[in-house]
Amino acid sequence: MRKTARSFVAKLFANAVWGILALGLYTPSATHAQLWTFSKQDLIDYTAQNPFERFSDGRPKVPDSLVERARGLSSEEIWAVLQEKGFNNQYSDGFQILHPGKSLVGRAFTVQFMPQRADFDGVERAKAKDHAIPHLTNQTAIDMLQPGDVLIVDLFGKKMNGTIVGDNLFYYVMKATNGGGLVVDGSIRDLDGISEIDMPAYFRAVDPTPIGNVMLTGINVPVRIGGATVLPGDLVVGDREGVYFIPPQFVQEVLDRADEIRIHDEWTKKKFDENKYKSSEVYPTPTDPTVKQEYQEYLKKRLEEIRKQRNSK
Amino acid sequence: MRKTARSFVAKLFANAVWGILALGLYTPSATHAQLWTFSKQDLIDYTAQNPFERFSDGRPKVPDSLVERARGLSSEEIWAVLQEKGFNNQYSDGFQILHPGKSLVGRAFTVQFMPQRADFDGVERAKAKDHAIPHLTNQTAIDMLQPGDVLIVDLFGKKMNGTIVGDNLFYYVMKATNGGGLVVDGSIRDLDGISEIDMPAYFRAVDPTPIGNVMLTGINVPVRIGGATVLPGDLVVGDREGVYFIPPQFVQEVLDRADEIRIHDEWTKKKFDENKYKSSEVYPTPTDPTVKQEYQEYLKKRLEEIRKQRNSK
Amino acid sequence: MRKTARSFVAKLFANAVWGILALGLYTPSATHAQLWTFSKQDLIDYTAQNPFERFSDGRPKVPDSLVERARGLSSEEIWAVLQEKGFNNQYSDGFQILHPGKSLVGRAFTVQFMPQRADFDGVERAKAKDHAIPHLTNQTAIDMLQPGDVLIVDLFGKKMNGTIVGDNLFYYVMKATNGGGLVVDGSIRDLDGISEIDMPAYFRAVDPTPIGNVMLTGINVPVRIGGATVLPGDLVVGDREGVYFIPPQFVQEVLDRADEIRIHDEWTKKKFDENKYKSSEVYPTPTDPTVKQEYQEYLKKRLEEIRKQRNSK
Amino acid sequence: MRKTARSFVAKLFANAVWGILALGLYTPSATHAQLWTFSKQDLIDYTAQNPFERFSDGRPKVPDSLVERARGLSSEEIWAVLQEKGFNNQYSDGFQILHPGKSLVGRAFTVQFMPQRADFDGVERAKAKDHAIPHLTNQTAIDMLQPGDVLIVDLFGKKMNGTIVGDNLFYYVMKATNGGGLVVDGSIRDLDGISEIDMPAYFRAVDPTPIGNVMLTGINVPVRIGGATVLPGDLVVGDREGVYFIPPQFVQEVLDRADEIRIHDEWTKKKFDENKYKSSEVYPTPTDPTVKQEYQEYLKKRLEEIRKQRNSK
Amino acid sequence: MRKTARSFVAKLFANAVWGILALGLYTPSATHAQLWTFSKQDLIDYTAQNPFERFSDGRPKVPDSLVERARGLSSEEIWAVLQEKGFNNQYSDGFQILHPGKSLVGRAFTVQFMPQRADFDGVERAKAKDHAIPHLTNQTAIDMLQPGDVLIVDLFGKKMNGTIVGDNLFYYVMKATNGGGLVVDGSIRDLDGISEIDMPAYFRAVDPTPIGNVMLTGINVPVRIGGATVLPGDLVVGDREGVYFIPPQFVQEVLDRADEIRIHDEWTKKKFDENKYKSSEVYPTPTDPTVKQEYQEYLKKRLEEIRKQRNSK
Amino acid sequence: MRKTARSFVAKLFANAVWGILALGLYTPSATHAQLWTFSKQDLIDYTAQNPFERFSDGRPKVPDSLVERARGLSSEEIWAVLQEKGFNNQYSDGFQILHPGKSLVGRAFTVQFMPQRADFDGVERAKAKDHAIPHLTNQTAIDMLQPGDVLIVDLFGKKMNGTIVGDNLFYYVMKATNGGGLVVDGSIRDLDGISEIDMPAYFRAVDPTPIGNVMLTGINVPVRIGGATVLPGDLVVGDREGVYFIPPQFVQEVLDRADEIRIHDEWTKKKFDENKYKSSEVYPTPTDPTVKQEYQEYLKKRLEEIRKQRNSK
Repeated sequence: MRKTARSFVAKLFANAVWGILALGLYTPSATHAQLWTFSKQDLIDYTAQNPFERFSDGRPKVPDSLVERARGLSSEEIWAVLQEKGFNNQYSDGFQILHPGKSLVGRAFTVQFMPQRADFDGVERAKAKDHAIPHLTNQTAIDMLQPGDVLIVDLFGKKMNGTIVGDNLFYYVMKATNGGGLVVDGSIRDLDGISEIDMPAYFRAVDPTPIGNVMLTGINVPVRIGGATVLPGDLVVGDREGVYFIPPQFVQEVLDRADEIRIHDEWTKKKFDENKYKSSEVYPTPTDPTVKQEYQEYLKKRLEEIRKQRNSK
Repeated sequence: MRKTARSFVAKLFANAVWGILALGLYTPSATHAQLWTFSKQDLIDYTAQNPFERFSDGRPKVPDSLVERARGLSSEEIWAVLQEKGFNNQYSDGFQILHPGKSLVGRAFTVQFMPQRADFDGVERAKAKDHAIPHLTNQTAIDMLQPGDVLIVDLFGKKMNGTIVGDNLFYYVMKATNGGGLVVDGSIRDLDGISEIDMPAYFRAVDPTPIGNVMLTGINVPVRIGGATVLPGDLVVGDREGVYFIPPQFVQEVLDRADEIRIHDEWTKKKFDENKYKSSEVYPTPTDPTVKQEYQEYLKKRLEEIRKQRNSK
Repeated sequence: MRKTARSFVAKLFANAVWGILALGLYTPSATHAQLWTFSKQDLIDYTAQNPFERFSDGRPKVPDSLVERARGLSSEEIWAVLQEKGFNNQYSDGFQILHPGKSLVGRAFTVQFMPQRADFDGVERAKAKDHAIPHLTNQTAIDMLQPGDVLIVDLFGKKMNGTIVGDNLFYYVMKATNGGGLVVDGSIRDLDGISEIDMPAYFRAVDPTPIGNVMLTGINVPVRIGGATVLPGDLVVGDREGVYFIPPQFVQEVLDRADEIRIHDEWTKKKFDENKYKSSEVYPTPTDPTVKQEYQEYLKKRLEEIRKQRNSK
Repeated sequence: MRKTARSFVAKLFANAVWGILALGLYTPSATHAQLWTFSKQDLIDYTAQNPFERFSDGRPKVPDSLVERARGLSSEEIWAVLQEKGFNNQYSDGFQILHPGKSLVGRAFTVQFMPQRADFDGVERAKAKDHAIPHLTNQTAIDMLQPGDVLIVDLFGKKMNGTIVGDNLFYYVMKATNGGGLVVDGSIRDLDGISEIDMPAYFRAVDPTPIGNVMLTGINVPVRIGGATVLPGDLVVGDREGVYFIPPQFVQEVLDRADEIRIHDEWTKKKFDENKYKSSEVYPTPTDPTVKQEYQEYLKKRLEEIRKQRNSK
Repeated sequence: MRKTARSFVAKLFANAVWGILALGLYTPSATHAQLWTFSKQDLIDYTAQNPFERFSDGRPKVPDSLVERARGLSSEEIWAVLQEKGFNNQYSDGFQILHPGKSLVGRAFTVQFMPQRADFDGVERAKAKDHAIPHLTNQTAIDMLQPGDVLIVDLFGKKMNGTIVGDNLFYYVMKATNGGGLVVDGSIRDLDGISEIDMPAYFRAVDPTPIGNVMLTGINVPVRIGGATVLPGDLVVGDREGVYFIPPQFVQEVLDRADEIRIHDEWTKKKFDENKYKSSEVYPTPTDPTVKQEYQEYLKKRLEEIRKQRNSK
Repeated sequence: MRKTARSFVAKLFANAVWGILALGLYTPSATHAQLWTFSKQDLIDYTAQNPFERFSDGRPKVPDSLVERARGLSSEEIWAVLQEKGFNNQYSDGFQILHPGKSLVGRAFTVQFMPQRADFDGVERAKAKDHAIPHLTNQTAIDMLQPGDVLIVDLFGKKMNGTIVGDNLFYYVMKATNGGGLVVDGSIRDLDGISEIDMPAYFRAVDPTPIGNVMLTGINVPVRIGGATVLPGDLVVGDREGVYFIPPQFVQEVLDRADEIRIHDEWTKKKFDENKYKSSEVYPTPTDPTVKQEYQEYLKKRLEEIRKQRNSK
């Protein structure tokens, strides 16, 4: 839905968010602190364990092939690895989910807002002007999105005026991220329109008001979404339950373990279909050594098949 | 579901609501105050800005053609006009929605209940008898519904015994209003049965108990639904988010503005489909004068087309 | 706290409440419906079971002597009588209580607000002008309070801008009602200042904003406070738990029964102090006929003492 | 989803639940109290009004034919009978429902957990060893399920580590109960996987963690689910609203009454379709004696048809 | 407050709880299971780690001297020991606290209720009659209380009709337990009266209704209070935050550790009073070896003083 | 309460917070961005409207005389000025208040935590080591507090392990800030001990666990407390309602306006004491010109007295 002329103006003053010209962002001045974004070096430092390539601004870039392979991951498969690593704050739930059956997968692009405060915001705007950024809205961040990104927004659970996008910008995000997705600890508007757009979205609420009474305070900085800490470049995976933010260094292990888990599920259900066993005789691990052996062979065979099939693509 | 013999009787005494014979209502005594309904003159006075015809009891009657045109309105389109007018208390959300994809449109027929209080209720019943109304239930109001009405009920969020209808009366409301709809700040029963009936409904909860422990205190008086004040004859519009109650005097402007908003949305998405622009170059308003010009022409052309098409019907 | 010049003006327009000149109220036109107040006759009709005198506007006036005697009533003592009468919707709890140890007793003076709606409110203002009421605020109602009244306000639980009084008006209410009290299903402001004023108050929340975005829709009409229906002239009694609204016709019986309950409590504790009985041997009723007899005599004696003492005053 | 090797071990110690070998259960020692299950005699005593056969452990067995007939029951139809009997604590709602359109019907198999407490749990494990039960998990109970059972679990609303099953065990429950169902006052995991399995389920929440930090304290004992008391062998019926637990002695009456209610609904809607009546002229009971007579005849005829049809199966 | 004659009768039928004659309880039949209480042997088995004496019914009896010493314990001091032992489910909070400054200490006497269900309750009543228990109320349990007990009641958070005591029975509990105390996961009534009685109490809510619509299902069995599992004989300790249920086997260690913690606190504040140190130089442990040495000597000296003082009593 | 040896170690690893040596902070490297604190220049830039002196790290220093004068401010007095300035996000409420009658006044010292994430936290620790900071806890921030500071902590509402201080550190904060105070959007522990310490505190919850599973991410950066944005150096004022964070540039105006408001209150109550006026004749502004004149003179006189008195100190 378009906001009408009067609300356009209102919005420019009301939501008072601001950003960075794409150009400015990619060649940040290394000489002083910036509130709204990390320098490339900082981003590299704070995600030092990333085993993959990076975007030109330093953000980790989980390879497309792994992003694609992650499409079927469930929260439980990710939990299995992350809890072993002691990463217990990478999951957030309690969202409204736009398309419950459609999985969310992509690289985290993070944005942070705080309640509007004119004195602070004024300084930010002045500094922005020094970087030749004429106006400052949520679109400043949205215009920086890349294919494969998921837009992760900390709007501190705000409902009224906490609407990061309506259907027009949701459509733009879908185009820009190539259907990546949206996770907002806040709200959206135009739900009827958005429902017809084929991109996954997780949000706290819906409201008819546009974004306002907030100020943009960070792009691609660490953000808090519910009880999770999200870093730019995390692999975002959402299912019917909630959203996991996987640090890049664990992506490969999560995917490999998921292969085994699925083979185990496949085999377990096959055994249950035989109607010969009590659940505890087969699950979580067979009690009979012969059956255990049978499983080990099945696992080996299926893993080989899967890898062969994967390599043949 | 039918309530069995015993609960029939229980109900007549339990919910102790009362009403007005249709006849009595349409020719109200103009000489003294009535708790449960406005006199025709009062209704006319309090909705004096209504630009349309009225029902015989004084309730504004937004024309069928505009009701029909309103079928595709979204909450955001209505917000755009009403906030400009300073009408900020016309929206209510947080409902369970029976058929999320099906839009709700119609004229508000309002009903108010309060917690049962036998002394007060007794006086109401006595006064009702004076008007030759033999028994008093939620059906007194329901039997007054007209085609195109939406039944708006203030049951103060009550769940147990706050069930305005089950599937039989829901079916009757559907027939009587010609599929108009129901908004209840309270509950319904027989959800399985109701799910199969093709009428929009917005409710707070579902409960197996019948309505009870309440008394009817108003028909077609101003009522409060969440944070909204609803007057009889308001145009009710519900989408996937919530429900708007549009005062009749703003209906035309809302609809005209919505035409422009949809053309703007249409055009914006077309531009985004071209993959040439950052979102802020096009939305909310084009930065490039040529593109702006292009939009102005598109808007003009499409408005004409829409009007032509509408008139040709 | 005083609202400063600018907010004075803001308030006149913002909260847009209105009322009735004291004079106008006491001689209401009997010939047409009024939204904001009952005619004297209506008030008499709807409280027909009132056994006591009435104020000049028709409101029941529980005598001062009974109001005074009610000062020590507890919620349980009132419950004992009202549930027998089938009056189950006369109690409301969940309030913040200003002075928890101080009991609230007085006659209900009711006020109702609804969310602001300019078209409706404009008609009310115009009608008010016809009655020579120049401006319309919460003070219109407050200025009508009588000694012994408790101000009962339905502000539908509103927190921000739902503040019926700050410390200045709270002080005025205390003076005007002779320390009667306040029950608001909404909020107050200036809690620090109000804490030092010796009048009982029950409220849902506290907020620094003044009342606003609401309109006055009724004075001395039936109002809903939580799950209770309150009529003007009800005897209001609040303790550490919540607030009871006693219909005038039950006041005498409640008080008489309370005498017996207190004697029973007195005697029960005395027996427990003897350390000879299990609780079930004495309470709720003695199992041993001799002890039962002892209680009957104690009850008789103490009732006589209490009545003698009461009459001697 | 399979839990990986490490979490298997963790789980065996973490959730520390325990049970009874099927053999042990069906021939319980009658000489001393057991925490986790009733003796056969106790179960018979406490469900003495059961008019049907019993399982070998004493649990009432509502016949398959009645279970099948119950498939279309709604909460309202059950309410109509149970409230007349004074059974007001047999209903629980507020669940997430896995397949809203699919009805839940079956015999209650109850399980109770409490927060883990190592000293108490240790004693239970020792006693279990005496009965030759080697390990103790939620599967001990699950492995005892029979066709037609619904698994009813009191996990006191626990979300994290309150997940009675993931998709593997959910699949097993479906196979073992022949699609019976699950009601858990707690949570489940693997929602994506579970969504594809065709068995009704009612649960409070979803969480990626496995069950843990709890101990099994009862199998087929009375349990509390929300505000309801459930006994083993109750007929469980769930619709879009919530779940009813019908004591066996009322099953026949509920079903017979439901026949009448449905015929009444059928007829009522037919009358409404004629567009000749106000709702109160037909519903809940016809005001016109001729119409009443018409209904009585319709009812009689349809009842006969239904019974004939039922018998012919 | 006394319940009047009519409600006495109502109550006997309404709350339908039942119990055990004191005599019957202390010499329980060891030959079959009882729903409402453990046999003496079961109670001994399930609290086998208790290092202290027992009551005649098998319940652990933490000695009076340790109960007295526990009077000053804080939740944090108990947490320090119990989390080391892996006992993480022994704490419950979120209560309303009657006398916030007054500590709660005593031995757990547990009672469990479930939602009323007439068929089940009828069997219990019949069995009770076989044990010559004429009527069944909450007082059956209350009449079994011993000096030093704290009454622990699982009423599953029920507010209306979940009121375990009013002021009369609260007074009796105070006398019978010698001021021990009350913890109820449910409500109380007569708050004004109870406020004047000098016994600690923790409750979820207050309501004017008497207990009802529930049935007694256990006395001195394991109960759940919030997220905690309580066994009969646990040492109950409540402060301004919440309530800890300490298994008897940890009481001595908790108390000894608390001595050290308090000496550490005492010394830490003394050092802070010297205004020479940053907090991290002293707390939690001194960084400077000399200061550390100073603390060790202080600890030794004070421990000796405390023990000497304790022994001299 | 002291945490015992084992939990000391646990804590160092568990809460994994870190900071800056006081020395390091006061001479920050100006050449690159720091996550946890602003450079002096940034702090000056972002609080450029501060009219007062600054601390050596750049934080605005509202003069002691104004801090002292602010001691009696109420939320309403501050609201009166800030809403005029358009600063609507400077207030937060919903706290538990330690000493409700004791006002909170001081300069904001802000601290921010986020959910623990080992990879990110590891980088911070490494960077800290480069600045010769050996270990990282909440005490790193606490040890930097100055007299007159109020410690403002964003712990995102965390209860368990969200406890910024227990009684030892609370005592230290009291000494270090000279009784300044604490506002935490999180919890505290040792409430019994803290209750005896004479410093104002506002917190969301109380829990027996120590701080943990979080990491320190900012000292003296902008933080969010409820719906408010707080900058270091804001004047913090708390009353019985909530907490206001006043930007330094408005402090003088707030205080001057408060003088007038209090005189107005004083005078208004005097007039009400005369029992001659309806509230609306005097408040908010006198309707009678003579009375208005009287007020103007009273105001002038009292303002002079107050200023004289203030200067004479």
